[in-house]
This record gives sequence, C-alpha cells and structure tokens, in this order.
Amino acid sequence: MQPRTTVQPPSSGRSLEHPARDAIRLEDVLHALSDPMRMRVVRTLAGETGELSCSVFDLPVSKSTTTHHFRVLRECGVINQIYRGTAKMNALRREDLDALFPGLLDSVLRAAADQDLRLGRDGG
Amino acid sequence: MQPRTTVQPPSSGRSLEHPARDAIRLEDVLHALSDPMRMRVVRTLAGETGELSCSVFDLPVSKSTTTHHFRVLRECGVINQIYRGTAKMNALRREDLDALFPGLLDSVLRAAADQDLRLGRDGG
Repeated sequence: MQPRTTVQPPSSGRSLEHPARDAIRLEDVLHALSDPMRMRVVRTLAGETGELSCSVFDLPVSKSTTTHHFRVLRECGVINQIYRGTAKMNALRREDLDALFPGLLDSVLRAAADQDLRLGRDGG
Repeated sequence: MQPRTTVQPPSSGRSLEHPARDAIRLEDVLHALSDPMRMRVVRTLAGETGELSCSVFDLPVSKSTTTHHFRVLRECGVINQIYRGTAKMNALRREDLDALFPGLLDSVLRAAADQDLRLGRDGG
C-alpha cells in the first residue's frame, strides 16, 4: 500500500454531490455493499479514523471501474468524497449510517470479516 | 391478505435447489436484500414462525417478476422453498443466516422498519 496522506490540505473549490443524511436509503446502501470491490473499500475505510486518498486503494479492476465504485458509494451515502488539492479523499459516513441504521454497518463488517476467515481469504 | 395455509402437506417429489449453509455468501445476501420487493418478502417471512405460500404475497409486480424475486432469495440462501401439494411454501433461513452473519438479519430488519417509520410508509 502506498503512503497515506496525513496532512489534509483544505478542500478545493470543486465539490461533489452527496445525499443528506435523511436522503440515504437502506436499499441503496445494501446494494452498494453487495459488490466485493465496494465492500473492500468500505472495510478499509472502516479501519481508518481519517480520510484516505483514492490512490491508496489498489483494487484489481480498471481505474474507471474504481472511480465508478467510489461514485456509487458516495451517491448512496456510504462515503464522503472531497477534493483536497489534487487528491480525492474518502471517508466513511459512519455517524450518518449508525444514526440511520443502528448496528447495521458493524454487523456487515463483522460478517465480511467472518466470511473471509471461513473462506481462508485475506481480509479487506 | 389471503388466508394462510396452516396445515402442511408433505413435500411433493419436486424439489428446488438451495445452497448449503457454507455456500451462502454475504455479498449475495446483501444483493438479495437490496431490492424493495425482496425485502418486503423477507420482512413478512421474518414475522412468521412457519411457512407461507407464495400466493399470500401480494407484490405490486407481475407474477413472473414475483417468481424471479423468490428464486433470487432461494438461490442466495435467504429462504427455503418447498413444494407442498400444489403450493410452493417459503420460509426464512434464519438459523443459517444468524449462524453465518450474527446480528445482520436483525439489524437489516430493524433498519427497514425504522426507515418506513421515518418515511411514513407502511411496513412490510
């Protein structure tokens, strides 16, 4: 994994659309999490307290597919994306998700970790 | 809602394919639950201790789409389907799901109920 950005430049003028908390829908969140690549992103973000640049995610898919997955996660309300300088930074909307769907995110993350153990797969 | 079958005739010779517990995958379950019609079926089944005939589900979609949704739920391991006489009976695989993904089903069901309350929608 590449070095992570720890210093956060202020966000640039470009902003990305996000649903407000009350516009987040369970069905969209479940759909977002049903994709293994998106789940991997969410699990990695869940292990971080801050933001991660898109560039630290080394998904075994094309760059455009990676961008698509991040957009799906943002548009359904699972992650926040913000431009800082030239980097697009990502963070899990844990507070929003926990407020709307208590226990859901944690049970999904645990289920994913348990499943990896069962299948002898590398987590995240 | 139509009367429910309470007497269970033995299953007929026709059987339907189901994944074994250890073949159930989290991503498939989340995908199955990400559809509002399938979620409605799961919520209704979660409120029952026994089996329900497909005919008691009055989904606002065509019969073939309804059949498709039940097949998706069966093939991903969320429900058991069995022929009893001429009826196809359905039951939630709660024991399997709870064993594989502790807390997940309950948190999803609760999230769906909470969301209905928030949106002023009828549950189930």
